[in-house]
Amino acid sequence: MSNKAFQRLEVTVRREQLLEVGCELFASRPYDEVWIDHVAAHAGVSRGLLYHYFGNKRGFLHAIVEQETAAILAATEPDPRLPPLQRLRAALDGYLDYVTTHPHGYRAIFRGAASTDSQVRAIIDANLHRQEQRILTALTDKQPPDETLRLAIHGWIALVIATALDWLENPTLDARTIRDLCINSLTGILTAGNHPLPTTPP
Amino acid sequence: MSNKAFQRLEVTVRREQLLEVGCELFASRPYDEVWIDHVAAHAGVSRGLLYHYFGNKRGFLHAIVEQETAAILAATEPDPRLPPLQRLRAALDGYLDYVTTHPHGYRAIFRGAASTDSQVRAIIDANLHRQEQRILTALTDKQPPDETLRLAIHGWIALVIATALDWLENPTLDARTIRDLCINSLTGILTAGNHPLPTTPP
Repeated sequence: MSNKAFQRLEVTVRREQLLEVGCELFASRPYDEVWIDHVAAHAGVSRGLLYHYFGNKRGFLHAIVEQETAAILAATEPDPRLPPLQRLRAALDGYLDYVTTHPHGYRAIFRGAASTDSQVRAIIDANLHRQEQRILTALTDKQPPDETLRLAIHGWIALVIATALDWLENPTLDARTIRDLCINSLTGILTAGNHPLPTTPP
Repeated sequence: MSNKAFQRLEVTVRREQLLEVGCELFASRPYDEVWIDHVAAHAGVSRGLLYHYFGNKRGFLHAIVEQETAAILAATEPDPRLPPLQRLRAALDGYLDYVTTHPHGYRAIFRGAASTDSQVRAIIDANLHRQEQRILTALTDKQPPDETLRLAIHGWIALVIATALDWLENPTLDARTIRDLCINSLTGILTAGNHPLPTTPP
């Protein structure tokens, strides 16, 4: 490996380490209670290096939220060959797998960062909107979908997030039970709202 | 009315006006994008008066969140004489009535303030916990309730909040439809999770 390539690798690894430390700190306290000095001390680097990589605390949080929301989308990539129920179940397995392997990142996004500033909010909203669209695509080919269906899916995603956050704090049930709880809730919501789950892709 | 009583009344009215302006500003932007100068200009008072009443911006937000969460609890006071379904429906009517009459306060709490600081978060969490307990009381006399039932209710409350916030942005459906959507979701969730709604108070 050339010296330059090695330096680039070092930068990437160092950046990832810093983001990981940031996740952990932003996960456990609100934005205003995280200090760059604290992040630097935790990561064993100078605050100058943090500013060099991310500009400021806000830029640092944006980088974290961008990385983690992208990881969630990747973990829940739907398989269009599967029928709707199986497709959602597989995506939810990927989702809960992300939650258990990245608890800090998950908490940092949905508990720590959500109301920090417009840009962070926009990144998170875009992520939620993308998830909403993916689910609606599995359920209906109507464009736009019924407003009651859209709202039901919007609400269900919030249910999944609240359930996952609570589960991280109180991990008495296993991932499978949480998955089934969420899927059963969805089928229950759809049935009660007269939008039964289609058995084949729309 | 004595002069002193009149002055007290004036303070109360002025304080309420300031909280109202605060709701409006905190509803439309994240915490860090609200400035005390802006609040003072909006309310037509000096920033000194704001500091006099609330200490600082944080104290001002705390006062808003405390006032609004108390108003939500009052608007959704359950009637224990009603059977569970009717009790929940009546409480949800009260809830949506609050949402439509206090859209700024509602947005300020659940969209603007939620991740600002530990104290604000504690006030909001206590409010959500109280709602959770009220609903569980209507559904079961088991103490503690099944963890799956507790999580389902926890998730359902998040569904209601997300639905109400979205509805404020996209007010195409009427309150009754939103109420039924939420109640149907709850009965669907409970049925799918093998916790059918009891027909009489537990």
